[in-house]
Amino acid sequence: MTVDKNNETVEKINVPEQKYKKSQKLPPEGFKTANDFFNYTFENKNLIWMGQNTNHLHHEDDINNAMIESIKNKEYCKYPAPEGFPELHELILKDLDLENMSVYISAGATESLHLCMHSLLEPEDNVITCDPGYLIIGAFAERFAHEVKYVPIYNKECNYKLTPKLVRENIDENTKIIVLIDPLNPLGTSYTEEEIKEFAEIAIENDIYLIHDITYRDFAREHFLTAKYAPKHTLTIYSFSKIYGMAGVRIGAVIGVEPLIDNIKNVVVNDLGVNIIAQEGAIAGLKSKPEWIDYIKNTSFENQKLIKEMIDKVDDVFLPVYPSDANMMVIDLTGAGIKAKDMSNYLLKKDIFTREGNYTSKLYGDNYLRVSFSIPTEEIKVFCEEFPKAVETLRKK
Amino acid sequence: MTVDKNNETVEKINVPEQKYKKSQKLPPEGFKTANDFFNYTFENKNLIWMGQNTNHLHHEDDINNAMIESIKNKEYCKYPAPEGFPELHELILKDLDLENMSVYISAGATESLHLCMHSLLEPEDNVITCDPGYLIIGAFAERFAHEVKYVPIYNKECNYKLTPKLVRENIDENTKIIVLIDPLNPLGTSYTEEEIKEFAEIAIENDIYLIHDITYRDFAREHFLTAKYAPKHTLTIYSFSKIYGMAGVRIGAVIGVEPLIDNIKNVVVNDLGVNIIAQEGAIAGLKSKPEWIDYIKNTSFENQKLIKEMIDKVDDVFLPVYPSDANMMVIDLTGAGIKAKDMSNYLLKKDIFTREGNYTSKLYGDNYLRVSFSIPTEEIKVFCEEFPKAVETLRKK
Repeated sequence: MTVDKNNETVEKINVPEQKYKKSQKLPPEGFKTANDFFNYTFENKNLIWMGQNTNHLHHEDDINNAMIESIKNKEYCKYPAPEGFPELHELILKDLDLENMSVYISAGATESLHLCMHSLLEPEDNVITCDPGYLIIGAFAERFAHEVKYVPIYNKECNYKLTPKLVRENIDENTKIIVLIDPLNPLGTSYTEEEIKEFAEIAIENDIYLIHDITYRDFAREHFLTAKYAPKHTLTIYSFSKIYGMAGVRIGAVIGVEPLIDNIKNVVVNDLGVNIIAQEGAIAGLKSKPEWIDYIKNTSFENQKLIKEMIDKVDDVFLPVYPSDANMMVIDLTGAGIKAKDMSNYLLKKDIFTREGNYTSKLYGDNYLRVSFSIPTEEIKVFCEEFPKAVETLRKK
Repeated sequence: MTVDKNNETVEKINVPEQKYKKSQKLPPEGFKTANDFFNYTFENKNLIWMGQNTNHLHHEDDINNAMIESIKNKEYCKYPAPEGFPELHELILKDLDLENMSVYISAGATESLHLCMHSLLEPEDNVITCDPGYLIIGAFAERFAHEVKYVPIYNKECNYKLTPKLVRENIDENTKIIVLIDPLNPLGTSYTEEEIKEFAEIAIENDIYLIHDITYRDFAREHFLTAKYAPKHTLTIYSFSKIYGMAGVRIGAVIGVEPLIDNIKNVVVNDLGVNIIAQEGAIAGLKSKPEWIDYIKNTSFENQKLIKEMIDKVDDVFLPVYPSDANMMVIDLTGAGIKAKDMSNYLLKKDIFTREGNYTSKLYGDNYLRVSFSIPTEEIKVFCEEFPKAVETLRKK
């Protein structure tokens, strides 16, 4: 207790020690905080949105209508079923052609990733993931694990992905989890059936868990599930943010055998369930998927072809991975001597929102720009006009 | 690795040890799981909803319209500002008449409670809360603390609340957090300005934190904030589930001085923010509040009077706290020899959803039924007809 001259209590704050290292992502030029920047991107209706792998291609109204109907009925004054509506569980399992599995619905796939790490990891455990990769997963793992190994994969030798060989080289007796982001954010690499089988073998042999994050699965030309080959050692992470175009409603899921999902229920954060409107939208999305998926997949794929054609004509930049099996790709800028952050700042001034590498890499953050292309083709064409000019302006002579 | 007779790998599961004791809440008779039960309650449109303190009294359409407009504009294909829209932050601070504070928007107040515990607690720390109370808070604290003290408060001596005196008696050198649920779920007790000032003094003197959960604040006849008297030692928990009637969209917030909220940002679960539709609804709810709050408060208050009049005529049952400053109250059944679970099961068969005590008490779970009354008055009248019959049927002769 501190007392001032008048003998009155003075409140001093003793700030608790920061538990984890704070992420040092800086907002773009001209913004005080990242939150202010995202508020700006959201409010700027002219912005071409290539920075968050979101999907702006849905024209049909099935998801919209289901959510609006839910609101009109004021369903939202009640709490939802806390683990998700059984109908939604069944539709997700059907979508993945999985049986005898449990599903837990979360406020975005991000929350599912947190729950997996919290439920599985003990302080002595190690985790293997890759760089580049979706760094939030590593950050969650660091909260609960002894060590998170970020295997460098930004090279041709491993085909820009975390291979079974690399996993075997990095495994040790304390390894508890291998994180497979497939297709990989940001590179768009994905796995063959043989590779998936080998990961399953590694998991079973070593009795460790695979977290198979399949957020971008539906953009891939083909895709295989570790849950088919190592069902008891896999937690599959499912998202409604990308192919369903529902990023802003924050709904996702984790799928696994019952004991693993039961374990997750012990560490839940949202004891009262996930947004009812989002669940109704997700149900409608799953039901209407056959009607729209080809349009979205094909448009995205044609869009990346346009980017490829443009990049091929620009000196000193290249696409490490093409085609991408996701709705985003990476453009390497090192040959032109351009820092990725300078490129994203430049493009933002042209109302094009992209992401510099450091959002998905600690090792190669300066090297590449990530662009997503599940947006209208006319916007891709604007990007294809502006990008070569940006390279000429920024390039080191 | 296990190999079967044909020399093939057999997958055996080695389920990880359960980190925390699993809650033993059983679903009502006839339901396999709690999730199945909640799915049933949601789908049964005839159910009188007195079991979850939700608010079914909103007739105006401001919140609806804002959410529908957001959907029609397909705002939801983008991610929201990850810490919540600045406009929403400002409106919440204005609603509480607080200045120089930071706000973090979460997927329900529940998530904010989790973030507070995760960000503040070290393994040696103790937490003080009360029984009866909102047990989810204690469960979150148990994940990160050494010990959670559930101070028994179901008695007249302390006026059915965690008093400053009780806190002083239970404080020790490792106490880090005092949880004040105010008004208290399930009893509806709340604090005078003098008591709030005393809690603030205790926090400052001992350099410990107050988590002031004000979920039911707007139903109270009067209400005071510890944030006014110990701003640097308070985290205030704000909910849109009750007075705003938005339980199903899962949005809430935590308010505190910047260093405390910064600390929370280090342990976030939903790195990509909270449902955009919910945020738009919350903004509309705050803006339109002056138009509807009196109707909702008054109707709830009149409804509890009807329940009081009914209870006064039934032998051997009583209201420990009346009037309640929340939208729920407790009916003590011990005098009639009726277990609360038997009562809630009985009423459910009459399509009335109430809550037995063990949802909010480990010590007095059999003793009382919790009923919420922010529902249409005609439904309260049905309850008032059915409850006396239920007592006569179930009473031990």
